[in-house]
Amino acid sequence: MQPVRTFSDLVSRLSSQGRRLRVAVINAADESTVTALCKAIDKGFARGILVGTQPNEALKACLSPYSEHITYLPAADEDEAARMAVELVRNEEADILMKGLLHTDNLLRAVLDKQHGLLPPGRVLSHITVAELPDFPRLLFITDVAVIPQPTDEQREWQVRYIDALCRNFGISAPRIGLVHFTEKVSPKFPLTLHYRALAEASAQGAWGATIIDGPLDVRTCLDPEALRAKGIRSPLRGYADALVFPDLESGNSFYKTITFFAHATVAGILQGTTAPVVLTSRGDDARSKFLSLATAAISLN
Amino acid sequence: MQPVRTFSDLVSRLSSQGRRLRVAVINAADESTVTALCKAIDKGFARGILVGTQPNEALKACLSPYSEHITYLPAADEDEAARMAVELVRNEEADILMKGLLHTDNLLRAVLDKQHGLLPPGRVLSHITVAELPDFPRLLFITDVAVIPQPTDEQREWQVRYIDALCRNFGISAPRIGLVHFTEKVSPKFPLTLHYRALAEASAQGAWGATIIDGPLDVRTCLDPEALRAKGIRSPLRGYADALVFPDLESGNSFYKTITFFAHATVAGILQGTTAPVVLTSRGDDARSKFLSLATAAISLN
Repeated sequence: MQPVRTFSDLVSRLSSQGRRLRVAVINAADESTVTALCKAIDKGFARGILVGTQPNEALKACLSPYSEHITYLPAADEDEAARMAVELVRNEEADILMKGLLHTDNLLRAVLDKQHGLLPPGRVLSHITVAELPDFPRLLFITDVAVIPQPTDEQREWQVRYIDALCRNFGISAPRIGLVHFTEKVSPKFPLTLHYRALAEASAQGAWGATIIDGPLDVRTCLDPEALRAKGIRSPLRGYADALVFPDLESGNSFYKTITFFAHATVAGILQGTTAPVVLTSRGDDARSKFLSLATAAISLN
Repeated sequence: MQPVRTFSDLVSRLSSQGRRLRVAVINAADESTVTALCKAIDKGFARGILVGTQPNEALKACLSPYSEHITYLPAADEDEAARMAVELVRNEEADILMKGLLHTDNLLRAVLDKQHGLLPPGRVLSHITVAELPDFPRLLFITDVAVIPQPTDEQREWQVRYIDALCRNFGISAPRIGLVHFTEKVSPKFPLTLHYRALAEASAQGAWGATIIDGPLDVRTCLDPEALRAKGIRSPLRGYADALVFPDLESGNSFYKTITFFAHATVAGILQGTTAPVVLTSRGDDARSKFLSLATAAISLN
């Protein structure tokens, strides 16, 4: 099977699989969430369970062509809607959880609830962004631009595991994962470089299967074979990383904001670590980004 | 005086000033350094003192049209060349120090030498990058992508001072400086945000003259008025920052590598804190980047 290398590939792949996943949407009351859901239904890979606040008349008109794939479940308030949607996922009555118009804190409270939530004990919550960039020939997987401020070694190992798995869901049989730092030097002054080295060595010894992990490398030596040559550095990634693991949230977020603002990237994002994929986009995200996040959530169940 | 808003403006400004600055180049033995120097001489804002290794025949031919603006000063080795060039600057026989073909460590040893170097006691060494980006209407000033891994509050205050001064050298009479963090929330969990808030308040009270400082803001809320609106945030920068101060080297370097690789930025860079500007470009930089760094060094003496 060919790997999925563009968002257009991704949508085609999901359409051709002919499997509708059940998406529990909490408060589907904003235009971009409803538009994203309609498009996913239209492309044949989703059905919607709309929990909580009902769409207004304008949005209902937008949903009406898809009524056979939509059910409604009213709730008393935001908190109840979040709890009910999480419960649907726990009971395997929904495959994907999606945020609509509610405060992120309220959604996270329901997702992270120790008794009734979606994060198994001992699992680390993190986030992956998938980006499509003009003039760049493949999708780029990035972690973590949203959740863990300063990952411990253990948290980082989970991040690598998650991004490796998501790359494989996209059909990349030997994912190339770059561990980002501002130089290529391993030094005890920057303890994360020691962990990077350990991960790279484990991968060289086959502990990660066909996955190739290397670092420390900077953003360019991960992605740009010419930069690698100019610096005279050897790396088993050879400048063709599929995925970047950032050292901390400051650098991950700065990368994310920069590719969306200066390089016109199109992005999708999902939470990691939960028992089912959670689409948790932010206010600024448009319908396309929410749709692609839903598509990413769907393929992560492959 | 109009502010300098593009690199082309910068070169015109320097040419029109009609002042040749004396550039001490250590080991001018590589093509990009020699080309950069020739162009600066050609544009009328430099003369060269070539210390150490002499250019080979091909490079000498390239220099020959400019012989009246060039002097040669042989040295026994790299270390001696670096020491001699630094000495020229200390004796006010040169205005700018420029790295040619030698190890950065050797140059830095001479520059940072406590007795015979260029960094006064108590001064903080840092670095500023100036970037020109397609579709972005002004030059962007960035610190620090190269020197201080994790600035203390005191070091950060120096960084703000340096970047404020350089913006003014470029003719920006009220520089707008954004202090970058991954969210806009001030929180004791991230102590740098408390310092950001203190700097923003001092600037609001006029302690920084006409300079406007604000933060914490993310890369987009610094630079993109629409992102600011979408997030519902108020900022005296109003999304029009001239300068970004990054929280640490990981995020600064990731920003730098990303704009050069994905957004086709043209960049210049100089060290800060030294008694004279030091042009310290890296192996990967081309002649244009070295020339623009020299131009940035020259205008920093305005």
